[in-house]
Amino acid sequence: MADPFWPGDERAGEHFTALEFVRAMVEVESEWLGEVLEVPDDVDDIAFEAEAGGNPVIPLVRRLRAQDHEVHRGLTSQDVVDSALMLMAAAACAELRRHLGSVAGRLAGLAERHRDTPMVARTLTQHAVPTTFGFRVATWLTGVLDAYDDLARLEFPRQVGGAAGTRAAIVELGRPVPPGTPRWHTTRAPMTRLGDALAGCTDACARIANDVLVLSRPEIGELAEGAGGGSSTMPNKSNPTLSVLIRRAALTTPQLAATLHLAAAQQVDDRADGGWHAEWATLRDLVRRTLVAASQTDSLIAGLRVDADRMAATLAAAGDAVLAEQRSLTHDPAPTYLGDAAAYVDEVVAQTKETTR
Amino acid sequence: MADPFWPGDERAGEHFTALEFVRAMVEVESEWLGEVLEVPDDVDDIAFEAEAGGNPVIPLVRRLRAQDHEVHRGLTSQDVVDSALMLMAAAACAELRRHLGSVAGRLAGLAERHRDTPMVARTLTQHAVPTTFGFRVATWLTGVLDAYDDLARLEFPRQVGGAAGTRAAIVELGRPVPPGTPRWHTTRAPMTRLGDALAGCTDACARIANDVLVLSRPEIGELAEGAGGGSSTMPNKSNPTLSVLIRRAALTTPQLAATLHLAAAQQVDDRADGGWHAEWATLRDLVRRTLVAASQTDSLIAGLRVDADRMAATLAAAGDAVLAEQRSLTHDPAPTYLGDAAAYVDEVVAQTKETTR
Amino acid sequence: MADPFWPGDERAGEHFTALEFVRAMVEVESEWLGEVLEVPDDVDDIAFEAEAGGNPVIPLVRRLRAQDHEVHRGLTSQDVVDSALMLMAAAACAELRRHLGSVAGRLAGLAERHRDTPMVARTLTQHAVPTTFGFRVATWLTGVLDAYDDLARLEFPRQVGGAAGTRAAIVELGRPVPPGTPRWHTTRAPMTRLGDALAGCTDACARIANDVLVLSRPEIGELAEGAGGGSSTMPNKSNPTLSVLIRRAALTTPQLAATLHLAAAQQVDDRADGGWHAEWATLRDLVRRTLVAASQTDSLIAGLRVDADRMAATLAAAGDAVLAEQRSLTHDPAPTYLGDAAAYVDEVVAQTKETTR
Amino acid sequence: MADPFWPGDERAGEHFTALEFVRAMVEVESEWLGEVLEVPDDVDDIAFEAEAGGNPVIPLVRRLRAQDHEVHRGLTSQDVVDSALMLMAAAACAELRRHLGSVAGRLAGLAERHRDTPMVARTLTQHAVPTTFGFRVATWLTGVLDAYDDLARLEFPRQVGGAAGTRAAIVELGRPVPPGTPRWHTTRAPMTRLGDALAGCTDACARIANDVLVLSRPEIGELAEGAGGGSSTMPNKSNPTLSVLIRRAALTTPQLAATLHLAAAQQVDDRADGGWHAEWATLRDLVRRTLVAASQTDSLIAGLRVDADRMAATLAAAGDAVLAEQRSLTHDPAPTYLGDAAAYVDEVVAQTKETTR
Repeated sequence: MADPFWPGDERAGEHFTALEFVRAMVEVESEWLGEVLEVPDDVDDIAFEAEAGGNPVIPLVRRLRAQDHEVHRGLTSQDVVDSALMLMAAAACAELRRHLGSVAGRLAGLAERHRDTPMVARTLTQHAVPTTFGFRVATWLTGVLDAYDDLARLEFPRQVGGAAGTRAAIVELGRPVPPGTPRWHTTRAPMTRLGDALAGCTDACARIANDVLVLSRPEIGELAEGAGGGSSTMPNKSNPTLSVLIRRAALTTPQLAATLHLAAAQQVDDRADGGWHAEWATLRDLVRRTLVAASQTDSLIAGLRVDADRMAATLAAAGDAVLAEQRSLTHDPAPTYLGDAAAYVDEVVAQTKETTR
Repeated sequence: MADPFWPGDERAGEHFTALEFVRAMVEVESEWLGEVLEVPDDVDDIAFEAEAGGNPVIPLVRRLRAQDHEVHRGLTSQDVVDSALMLMAAAACAELRRHLGSVAGRLAGLAERHRDTPMVARTLTQHAVPTTFGFRVATWLTGVLDAYDDLARLEFPRQVGGAAGTRAAIVELGRPVPPGTPRWHTTRAPMTRLGDALAGCTDACARIANDVLVLSRPEIGELAEGAGGGSSTMPNKSNPTLSVLIRRAALTTPQLAATLHLAAAQQVDDRADGGWHAEWATLRDLVRRTLVAASQTDSLIAGLRVDADRMAATLAAAGDAVLAEQRSLTHDPAPTYLGDAAAYVDEVVAQTKETTR
Repeated sequence: MADPFWPGDERAGEHFTALEFVRAMVEVESEWLGEVLEVPDDVDDIAFEAEAGGNPVIPLVRRLRAQDHEVHRGLTSQDVVDSALMLMAAAACAELRRHLGSVAGRLAGLAERHRDTPMVARTLTQHAVPTTFGFRVATWLTGVLDAYDDLARLEFPRQVGGAAGTRAAIVELGRPVPPGTPRWHTTRAPMTRLGDALAGCTDACARIANDVLVLSRPEIGELAEGAGGGSSTMPNKSNPTLSVLIRRAALTTPQLAATLHLAAAQQVDDRADGGWHAEWATLRDLVRRTLVAASQTDSLIAGLRVDADRMAATLAAAGDAVLAEQRSLTHDPAPTYLGDAAAYVDEVVAQTKETTR
Repeated sequence: MADPFWPGDERAGEHFTALEFVRAMVEVESEWLGEVLEVPDDVDDIAFEAEAGGNPVIPLVRRLRAQDHEVHRGLTSQDVVDSALMLMAAAACAELRRHLGSVAGRLAGLAERHRDTPMVARTLTQHAVPTTFGFRVATWLTGVLDAYDDLARLEFPRQVGGAAGTRAAIVELGRPVPPGTPRWHTTRAPMTRLGDALAGCTDACARIANDVLVLSRPEIGELAEGAGGGSSTMPNKSNPTLSVLIRRAALTTPQLAATLHLAAAQQVDDRADGGWHAEWATLRDLVRRTLVAASQTDSLIAGLRVDADRMAATLAAAGDAVLAEQRSLTHDPAPTYLGDAAAYVDEVVAQTKETTR
């Protein structure tokens, strides 16, 4: 499935599709029943019938009971939806970590290769002092590792609470619940932490894309996207399409993560009257867009072309001005303009191997 | 199409589906060409090929040129995407106005029927003073009419700018452009006004749903959703499902409208590097959710059950306390506790006929 | 008052300060009483006492009753707060229109001066086709005029509803209410329209700032902020500080406008249990930041330096590639590369005089 | 300082005031210099002069150099601002943990006292099955402990990068930097993690307030705020003011946290052109509102009145319907309607002692 409203969406594969949601719910019911249930093939009908009760579990369970009438005993709709969302999220985050791990690996290599490639640092859009491209890449990498760390810390708990969280029927039925299974039916930290971590991933990807967009402007020309995208009308154009699409994602994900917090803040009673329901599609969009952005970032780095000569020329042309800070600080006839940039590259590269192994 | 992540989504019908998007783009190209083009039947492939150039126009035009090689001359991708989004938005907003018009009509009738039905007003959750249910409905109606007004003011301009907004090729080709066609390729007020108006619609719907959710609590029992939704586990439950789903929508739409503003604030150059692309799916979700919420509100009001006896009983039980404000203000032995509530009902009902005709 | 957390805040003057809020509330009470009341001088104490009842009206009225014990009769806290917010908003928006009117006037002059100044158009960061700087300025101006229009359409209604909107005590007291005074105590379109219009202003300002930030990069050098800001450490730097600060504002205002919508969507009963209270500080920040951004934009345009030679040189250096689109469309030996750019400048300049007079 | 736009603001004390910001910046400069500098007393002038360079460090350093001209050597503005924000954040989060620790302690006591107090569970606003008030409190507590955990995991790193992150001048000057000091000048995870954790705190507080608001409705009457707030006009009212104000905060904080993510996603070059500047006031508001909400929650719980008789009466009145789920599942003549509610109370109470000690 691809989406003309979100070019690149197919990179997210089957994660959080309607069918996957039904499959995950069936998996939850199967595990609970201790028996493998078949996935109904009328996903669209289930979705259609979901409005009546406000969620897709009721029509799904109706179908599953035809396979085994013991299905769903002791559970409530929220148990099934929440657990299914977390099952899907765990799989998506595993893939996301693979993408980010790959990005990190590529960035580490790039940083090492350009450990000593001089370029001009820019602050507030203006030339500042000398730096290296390797150092710049190391800062990108820092962001990716931070995002990776946050993903790695996530937990994807099941929900097993029964009608109102008290597990009344479950206890009555004598059903054991895996120890440590939290109850989060009205306290949504597992959901908001997930959303926050995902937003952190698109932050890290966009931070890279922003630099590519600036540095691949023709007047700067220090970087270029490998392939570049075409234009419907201008044969001359080679657009930094991947960077544009990555940046796009990061303009939308923070508000999706905020929606998850707002939904959490609307929790009330023993099941919320809207706050719960607002999460599902929001999480779906957040997960898919993050997967797409991470995958596009991987492609972006894989194809990135670096023009070290142009970097050197820009720095040379910037001239004495960018050396002024340091000269004002020292009487040293040959000051170390690059500080510990190379050491930082080494440090972050080492940290990459530690973090993503 | 229905969506298990967003129960009720099917109420939005075909508005802003992938196929509709392609259809609308073909309509834009057809109008420009002056010839009816056929809609390609491989929408998914077009979507899939959209990533390379960053938008679906390039693969679409490739297909359309097989029908007539004069297709798209003088236009740019943004002309086609923006115009297609506005075509779809115009159709969606026309339907939205029908929904809100129907809601307004029903509310006007309800307000009139309960013009003199006393109930207790509640402020900050606590009993305050006497009011009427008709007055409460008139306030709901005020919100719906405000939303309707904002919709009615919207414009859905085409975009005809060519490669960079200057219409260079268009002028060269001697193609006339309809007078008054604005150029908004990097100033996005038509988009943000649309988003803001849509968020205003869900605000108005949620404001009603919130009251139904409170007043249909069993301890209050003054209102009830007509049918009510079932539970996957509790045979006794009759849940205010429509209200829950309406409220859900309004927790998500403000952030979507904010994303459109953020995208507008990221405009740069003669076509933005991400701000433009972030709009498409955001607008799609905003439109569809608003349509769903408005349609659900129409169903909600159509089936709403009002328990006037219970309202009277609650007011009576509230006793003297809720009359205290007025007694403190007047020596009148029989003060007019209801103020101009009935007159306000009449005023808003009259305004409804004016606004929505 | 200035704010180290928001450099430039002093440009918003006294709008929406704590003292102004108290003054505006006293003005509302004075108008209602038909007598000029003195503004208490212990604003901080009033603010401190506001928590107990949840709003500042209760402690304020306590003080005002010492001046005249008829104060506040028939009104409720929300009448006073809402009316005071709208009084302040009306004054702030009048000033905002002055700022935007000045910006529009300057932009109109700039567009006319550079009506025929050629430069290269850039789309998705890359060189596209020829354009003029006047055309670019005309697009900036389009955005400013759209924002101005939205401001001009705003209404700033008073709130006169009494305890629960029914004006019970007001009618009892025989107090006339100005005809056409709407009741919006739980339907907040006047508030959300205001927020949306304000966000539209920062969108329009940021759209300009973004271009200045790109075009004043040293490698591009087509624009420069007049003065430019210094650095704490690098004597060579001349930073586009105003543009940076304008852009900053527009990253924050959409979320503030979204908060107003969320608050509107949380309305319930005859006074909301939190949705109302969330508006006050949100509106304050939104108003002040918009005023600051508009004023900074006025300064930015006033001082903007345009390097027409550099623009010409960049276009020349871009060479044949940026002419390719048009050559592919025409056999004309001397195609009109600038389309109707000049006509658009004239059109928008004429519209400016119409809109802002 | 109190704020009439945000009743209760004084509970946040001096955290993140303008003076504290200046003090924290002076502390950062003092540490770096190895000498205690005096805090200038013209904070408002510093704030006023901040616009020229876009941040308050330049005017501050001008003043500090009068004390010792070696001040700020090797540092850049961002080092000082970022480090100062983190210093203030560390202090604020320590206080926040004290508030939440106190809330958690009170909730643990409340849960234990009502471990066996029966009440009706409500889902989607309707009566569901039996539960206990202790269980409900345990779910509140779960949310608070989750928020506490997230706070406890935060780090508040200093920023020491010099002009462009490379520490060029710092190395040149031979200044040692504490090992492990990260460089996060353009990768803002320390900032977004902080924002996300703060939003998590208001989520947890609002989740409690929402229940108090529902359960203290007069028709339900199972809970009441200890004192309750008065009304400007209705002598009878006792409003759940603290709950209202807590809920208010949580309607605004998710969008502030989203702004921090958006700012992170706008990082570019070696210092961002607006994304950095958007953080300061956003963080200030987020911190102060969270502190206020946590403190108000502590007061709320301290004064909360529980009407166990009313809970029992409601459950009894709900009758057989709420027992139906379980009867349908078992032939047990006396089913265990409360599941493991009491065990969950014990578990969460034990966890409280572990987490907050």
